[in-house]
Amino acid sequence: MRALRKTGPGPGAELVEIPVPMPGPNEVLVRVQAASICGTDLHIYEWNAWAARRIGDGRLPYTFGHEVAGRVVAVGDEVDHPLPGAFVAAETHLFCGHCGLCRTGKPHICQDMKILGVDVDGAFADYLVLPAHNAWVVDPRIPVDIASTMEPFGNAVHTVFPPGTDPEVATSVVAVLGCGPIGLFAIGVCRAAGARTVIAVEPNEFRLSLAKAMGADQLIDPSREDPVAAVLAATDGLGADVVLEMSGVPAVIEQGTRMLQHGGRLSLLGLPAGPVSLDLTDHVIFKEARIFGVTGRELFRSWQQTTTLLATGMVDVRPTITGQYPLERFEEAFDAVGSGRSAKVIFSIGNDE
Amino acid sequence: MRALRKTGPGPGAELVEIPVPMPGPNEVLVRVQAASICGTDLHIYEWNAWAARRIGDGRLPYTFGHEVAGRVVAVGDEVDHPLPGAFVAAETHLFCGHCGLCRTGKPHICQDMKILGVDVDGAFADYLVLPAHNAWVVDPRIPVDIASTMEPFGNAVHTVFPPGTDPEVATSVVAVLGCGPIGLFAIGVCRAAGARTVIAVEPNEFRLSLAKAMGADQLIDPSREDPVAAVLAATDGLGADVVLEMSGVPAVIEQGTRMLQHGGRLSLLGLPAGPVSLDLTDHVIFKEARIFGVTGRELFRSWQQTTTLLATGMVDVRPTITGQYPLERFEEAFDAVGSGRSAKVIFSIGNDE
Amino acid sequence: MRALRKTGPGPGAELVEIPVPMPGPNEVLVRVQAASICGTDLHIYEWNAWAARRIGDGRLPYTFGHEVAGRVVAVGDEVDHPLPGAFVAAETHLFCGHCGLCRTGKPHICQDMKILGVDVDGAFADYLVLPAHNAWVVDPRIPVDIASTMEPFGNAVHTVFPPGTDPEVATSVVAVLGCGPIGLFAIGVCRAAGARTVIAVEPNEFRLSLAKAMGADQLIDPSREDPVAAVLAATDGLGADVVLEMSGVPAVIEQGTRMLQHGGRLSLLGLPAGPVSLDLTDHVIFKEARIFGVTGRELFRSWQQTTTLLATGMVDVRPTITGQYPLERFEEAFDAVGSGRSAKVIFSIGNDE
Amino acid sequence: MRALRKTGPGPGAELVEIPVPMPGPNEVLVRVQAASICGTDLHIYEWNAWAARRIGDGRLPYTFGHEVAGRVVAVGDEVDHPLPGAFVAAETHLFCGHCGLCRTGKPHICQDMKILGVDVDGAFADYLVLPAHNAWVVDPRIPVDIASTMEPFGNAVHTVFPPGTDPEVATSVVAVLGCGPIGLFAIGVCRAAGARTVIAVEPNEFRLSLAKAMGADQLIDPSREDPVAAVLAATDGLGADVVLEMSGVPAVIEQGTRMLQHGGRLSLLGLPAGPVSLDLTDHVIFKEARIFGVTGRELFRSWQQTTTLLATGMVDVRPTITGQYPLERFEEAFDAVGSGRSAKVIFSIGNDE
Repeated sequence: MRALRKTGPGPGAELVEIPVPMPGPNEVLVRVQAASICGTDLHIYEWNAWAARRIGDGRLPYTFGHEVAGRVVAVGDEVDHPLPGAFVAAETHLFCGHCGLCRTGKPHICQDMKILGVDVDGAFADYLVLPAHNAWVVDPRIPVDIASTMEPFGNAVHTVFPPGTDPEVATSVVAVLGCGPIGLFAIGVCRAAGARTVIAVEPNEFRLSLAKAMGADQLIDPSREDPVAAVLAATDGLGADVVLEMSGVPAVIEQGTRMLQHGGRLSLLGLPAGPVSLDLTDHVIFKEARIFGVTGRELFRSWQQTTTLLATGMVDVRPTITGQYPLERFEEAFDAVGSGRSAKVIFSIGNDE
Repeated sequence: MRALRKTGPGPGAELVEIPVPMPGPNEVLVRVQAASICGTDLHIYEWNAWAARRIGDGRLPYTFGHEVAGRVVAVGDEVDHPLPGAFVAAETHLFCGHCGLCRTGKPHICQDMKILGVDVDGAFADYLVLPAHNAWVVDPRIPVDIASTMEPFGNAVHTVFPPGTDPEVATSVVAVLGCGPIGLFAIGVCRAAGARTVIAVEPNEFRLSLAKAMGADQLIDPSREDPVAAVLAATDGLGADVVLEMSGVPAVIEQGTRMLQHGGRLSLLGLPAGPVSLDLTDHVIFKEARIFGVTGRELFRSWQQTTTLLATGMVDVRPTITGQYPLERFEEAFDAVGSGRSAKVIFSIGNDE
Repeated sequence: MRALRKTGPGPGAELVEIPVPMPGPNEVLVRVQAASICGTDLHIYEWNAWAARRIGDGRLPYTFGHEVAGRVVAVGDEVDHPLPGAFVAAETHLFCGHCGLCRTGKPHICQDMKILGVDVDGAFADYLVLPAHNAWVVDPRIPVDIASTMEPFGNAVHTVFPPGTDPEVATSVVAVLGCGPIGLFAIGVCRAAGARTVIAVEPNEFRLSLAKAMGADQLIDPSREDPVAAVLAATDGLGADVVLEMSGVPAVIEQGTRMLQHGGRLSLLGLPAGPVSLDLTDHVIFKEARIFGVTGRELFRSWQQTTTLLATGMVDVRPTITGQYPLERFEEAFDAVGSGRSAKVIFSIGNDE
Repeated sequence: MRALRKTGPGPGAELVEIPVPMPGPNEVLVRVQAASICGTDLHIYEWNAWAARRIGDGRLPYTFGHEVAGRVVAVGDEVDHPLPGAFVAAETHLFCGHCGLCRTGKPHICQDMKILGVDVDGAFADYLVLPAHNAWVVDPRIPVDIASTMEPFGNAVHTVFPPGTDPEVATSVVAVLGCGPIGLFAIGVCRAAGARTVIAVEPNEFRLSLAKAMGADQLIDPSREDPVAAVLAATDGLGADVVLEMSGVPAVIEQGTRMLQHGGRLSLLGLPAGPVSLDLTDHVIFKEARIFGVTGRELFRSWQQTTTLLATGMVDVRPTITGQYPLERFEEAFDAVGSGRSAKVIFSIGNDE
């Protein structure tokens, strides 16, 4: 089968032929139909400092990619869910199942997590092996190409709806900082969940136009106006009830605390590369703000919610899909992802024969 | 009446005679019996940079002090709760009652808060005027001198029991960073609430011995061992479920994130003087940690809980009371507070005649 | 001034002239502009068994009515919010402000509650006296006549969004049992908050058509089909995540438990006149269902949420307003309310001169 | 091996020899050391109407019993947790792992639940087969005989600490209705978790004495005094914050609602045999009470909490263990359970050789 692989420690990747993998007793084999490109994949493709450190030479060569949907074509001996023929999307967090967090309903923060396409062979290939438990059967109302975006969409859902949220999004003012694909998805989710006002903050004009398309009420270009002042102006000086940080930029995270209402919530999904300096006294402690780290998806509550939002049409992610490529044109696809004039880019890999 | 006042911008205070204040229509006049000294009072006494900036010359002269209990001796025309004769402690956050937060059950994070003894005349005096709503009738099982500590005890209670807590303290491993009076109170509260293990971190040997007296299971002197390593060692490498940050020291806050279990909670009560640099990616986002700013007390849930804990004897705060002084010996009292060999120091001011 | 009063123990009411009341020090005087009719008012008008017992002869004569909006024309000496000129709607639960529940952020379940128009003179009159704290300043985007429905709309909001809700309404299947005005409002709120499917159950065909207009996805006439079977059929046999009981009919409440999903929530707002018999073992305990009693509105979170939903147009309540009458035509108005071909009926009483 | 089996539809059981079962690929074989008797087991032993209906002739003969601990002696091919040699207790709810509730962190309310010792062969035998996932490794500080009570103790823990609890147990007044083993355990758990007052209601004098031993502050014999009046008297007329219903008696459940404070929580664990009639208007809706159905244990949060409470000595269950028998003396053991002068009765079955 074809597989897009990192074959050496450096930029780029190679499309090579390798054997189709065999599923273990509790695994399924998936014929990949669509796989979308995450920012993480771009880091791996470019082999930046993070990728060199996180993955390392020892794993090479390996197949990357993790946002994926396809049809189950074979299952291990112990698998009775899902069965061959099921069309599934992949939960990419490969939790151990045995640690204290896995045992208490929080496998998404497993103490011993492995990541598909990072720690084990991934999705940019004709076939993929997955633990059966990580295969989510896709609602038939969700199109094949959209299905590969359920994984990052689930990130947005988990950011918007953490367990035990106060304040909740319904009737709240929400600021979304950073309008990459997950930020864009989050705008749609907040809109569907009855946010009062959704304010999008993003310096890239193209992405800001997508934020508009996804339902943002107010667009702020931080290269033109101070986003903290703009959010305060939009809220009678009070600040946003909920801030969803999707950029990972330290200065933006810091702005997130300053635009927050007393008692507000700042959810952090974007990953800063270095330390972040915050004024905790004035903007967290006296405000009694809550900062929530967010990673992955709640298993599988986020998938259920994602299914509802996408299958019913409450959120339409089509505006965020800015390119579809066959696997052979991977260089073009990664160029698009890195160009700043794209959001979600998808590989169309196979289909039902 | 006597009042301990800041009469000029600089260190020290003066005990002077001033007229007894008159309560307004919705206020009460309290004969002060006990008033305890907060770290904030020491800052004001010493007139450090924070005090000079926060209070400023314009307010001088004024009476400071805010942790206080006494008997209601007169009430305004519109007051029917409490009535003269009631023994009360003061909630020191003077909320506006009209802003969105006051109107929605969160007056402790009022948008327009004033603080007793900071923004208006305070408690180190024979008499005190309070909004009737801020006077909490003290359970008769709580002794007079202890009653003045209900306010800081309520801080500890609010830190331990935020609304919607997950993880909760019962059966959890809790680390308390900094064992000033509120940290010491928090140790007692966690013990009473069924914490599995309470780990106290404090460099001052005297305070560490008080932590032991309040029920800490494990004492860590960070000048002798790395507190992060020690907490991890005590938890099979997992980290604490709950960290209560009471020191306000930036480096300690940062350690708080590093000793936190996946899915853990870090509550911040101590006030750092400057920016705090955090590794959010590894210790907040990937851990899906929750950071809660904490200020004041929930009005008045924290007071109800405080009452229960102190009146039933579930927590005994006597070990934390390291000195009692008449108002005349204020210099001695402040020296004690600043000495490092004290915890809670109380002025015994008046009593029922 | 004119006032619609119960003057004797029996059906009917009299429109009489009485003096304009005087506000006390912490009260406001409101020039009534619109007052809508609640089911409770119909009970009082008809003087049914509940009214005879709850109100009793001793209170007569008195003015009834409580859903009301109007302009503040005078305020007591101690009032600085709101000021004369403000257009306000009335929170009708007159909480004591002093009991444990009032003191801990739950005044809507005050231990010593009085109800406007039941325990004290009410709203079907030219002028009304209210505690200043019970006057909610209306967002100018909400029209005058709609403003008087904010109080029952707030009931719907509080039913849909209880604190600490799990499951939440966003992405859930919700069944609304009974489509009187509050049920109809709840349908609109659920729709705005991102419910997956809203199922309305109501035997009255006219009201079922209003349910459709408010956004219900599925309409069930329980006189034609078994509502439990219908909800199960609509949910692959699983049941609804959330059931909002608005009818107060014992058999319907019991059906509510039977149509509930494992882990589901049944919120009870409708008031049954007698005991209700439930199969707790199979439909509450084994399902681990949660039953929430609901009364009034959260003060004033529900009012904030109501404001957002009505002022932004997220919910349009116009379809539910089926009649507007001057006070003189009160008999016609009450006939309409009792007719089964109405939802919300409003008295247009005064306006700005 | 020996197995205590129901061999026919009627009272009693037979101790017979049957082959040791073989674990499947994802199962473990456990050498049973201790198995305790649940009220359910007594129903099965007596073959009452519930047992005849729930289990039915079709399953006979089969082995009953489900509260059990023992050592893993063999594991299936796919099992790597736990390994042979581990000492484990059984989670007796055999969830499907595939339904919506299992997939979203709520397997304890699985749509397709099977129960150990009810739907499949159980624990009153020398050996037992369990899904590996249902085997909880016991903390070595918990003695063997106590380990078999972790399952019902976990019921008590889950009743006391539901997710998202408000009001919480710490500093609350709790009434426990019914002092069978789970009620007695709940008293100990509430005590450890910082309840203000624990009130035990139980007509059996022997059990009431055990309630005292487990830490109840107040004992109410409902055959001598009205428990509703007694709880109101103990709470200044307000009622209990939390009521834990462990009796399953309809009249007692109804009393539970009447003794509840406004905003209080009533958790239902006891299983009523028939319908329960409640005054929802006055005691649930106007009070804004919350009724929580409770079944089983949260998987596996309740087991973690149980481990902490038993391993640290925060709760000592020894007073509740009123008899230990070899399997041969099963008739004596069941007589003891049915006698009213017992609480938890344990079979000592095997031990390490």
